[in-house]
Amino acid sequence: MDEGLLEVLGEIRKEVDAALEGFLPKPPAAPAPLCEAMAYSIFAGGKRFRPALAILVSQALGAPRERALPAACALEMIHTYSLIHDDLPAMDDDDLRRGKPSSHKVFGEATAILAGDALLTLAFEVAAGSPPEADPAWICRELAAGAGAGGMVAGQVADMAAEGAGGGLDDLEYIHTRKTGALIRAAARVGAISAGAEAETVDLAGRFGEKLGLLFQMTDDILDETARTKDLGKTAGKDAAAGKLTYPALLGLENARETARETASAALTILEEMPCPHRMLALLVEFVLDRPS
Amino acid sequence: MDEGLLEVLGEIRKEVDAALEGFLPKPPAAPAPLCEAMAYSIFAGGKRFRPALAILVSQALGAPRERALPAACALEMIHTYSLIHDDLPAMDDDDLRRGKPSSHKVFGEATAILAGDALLTLAFEVAAGSPPEADPAWICRELAAGAGAGGMVAGQVADMAAEGAGGGLDDLEYIHTRKTGALIRAAARVGAISAGAEAETVDLAGRFGEKLGLLFQMTDDILDETARTKDLGKTAGKDAAAGKLTYPALLGLENARETARETASAALTILEEMPCPHRMLALLVEFVLDRPS
Repeated sequence: MDEGLLEVLGEIRKEVDAALEGFLPKPPAAPAPLCEAMAYSIFAGGKRFRPALAILVSQALGAPRERALPAACALEMIHTYSLIHDDLPAMDDDDLRRGKPSSHKVFGEATAILAGDALLTLAFEVAAGSPPEADPAWICRELAAGAGAGGMVAGQVADMAAEGAGGGLDDLEYIHTRKTGALIRAAARVGAISAGAEAETVDLAGRFGEKLGLLFQMTDDILDETARTKDLGKTAGKDAAAGKLTYPALLGLENARETARETASAALTILEEMPCPHRMLALLVEFVLDRPS
Repeated sequence: MDEGLLEVLGEIRKEVDAALEGFLPKPPAAPAPLCEAMAYSIFAGGKRFRPALAILVSQALGAPRERALPAACALEMIHTYSLIHDDLPAMDDDDLRRGKPSSHKVFGEATAILAGDALLTLAFEVAAGSPPEADPAWICRELAAGAGAGGMVAGQVADMAAEGAGGGLDDLEYIHTRKTGALIRAAARVGAISAGAEAETVDLAGRFGEKLGLLFQMTDDILDETARTKDLGKTAGKDAAAGKLTYPALLGLENARETARETASAALTILEEMPCPHRMLALLVEFVLDRPS
């Protein structure tokens, strides 16, 4: 593992956490239990992967780190809202998230639903407050396209429909490119947009994000098979138990690992086309491929 | 009732419905059940009050009607998402909405939650796609502030907390200015913003929207007491049965009616300060005061 990347990721994480803290509402601006529920899930130990991707792309293209910070925080809010809603009893009914009881176990279903709604809404308020040179309206459109009915929400619908119903590699790719892939792709794109990149470069960043998102989900599936609950922060082996479509389930563990390596390689190839140095982004690909949790 | 206003409201409704139809996703861009659930609630017979307010403000300030159309559609999407989520079993547990079974009764809880999430997300995609002269980033910030943790969501949290717990006029105003008021205020503000109005005029429109929103909620409370379920399209008398805070419950029916008349009068006084003719907006106030449903 490259120490330079780890250090940069640590710095970004600190800056993003400080900015998130500043953006979250506090009483009496919003009801105390709602504020508490929003903060509980935002600060439950997330890796800040999507914010880091947006900021690293933006920085690679020459923008100062703070330029993409509002968009980065918005990405984390959208990601967190989706986890809160996915964990609900009516959805995946998960009691554990990031190693802690999920939102509805702590605050009740109503507050959990509303905390998710409020985080999703706040994401757009924060993204729309990006500096003018970051093109806030375009950032909002990208975030919404990644998170919405054709992106992340579509992936959750398909994921639930597939549960126990089986399916093949096509179904799995449909789910993954949307459920996690669409927002990771959006992260790469808003990073480029906030740096003022040309449409062509934004598309290139999007193709890179697409591969990285796929890789992220592959290693997530592999970790669910191989890691222990304690290391993972969520219930390990749950996918297999629920009959979920996963790469290891469809391809076997070794082939899934090989496919992950190929996907990482494809992401690195796309990076070569970027009109800028991209060392940190290349290291990020290797980090995702080899991540322990 | 003024025929001129009714005609204009009818035209706006047609234009908004056509635009909403165009903005809603269709398969295969999004999963069929999700598209169906989104369209079901959007086209369940809403009065399009918030879109009409935004468009009438925008037009009064001299903008062509289509200028505020994306923001108007976004308002209706946000309003509709809030109804879907409020009706959920974990929230108000309502089986009937706008005279039809509520979303979760038809599509199940998971799809209802996701349809709400997708509508909220789409609202910001559409609002962010407003023409540049309408200041899409500002519109997004206003919509989010009205809909979020300090606005509509805060109102729903407080409304649920107050249920059965009693409370006074202060609690009732806290709830109403947020649960319905904040988005109606935002509607008036985004109408002014989309017309390119000065900040001062945007604030004035917001103060008008605030009074109109309060009035809207007062007549809603009064109708819940006096109308029949058939006319109302939702279960009548439910507020009283649930021990909800309402104006008639706190003030008595006659005093509630008098307070509504005073609020309408205050709204009309604010209108007088507007730097433009505002006949349709004045008629809208009377329409809300005397509305039959």
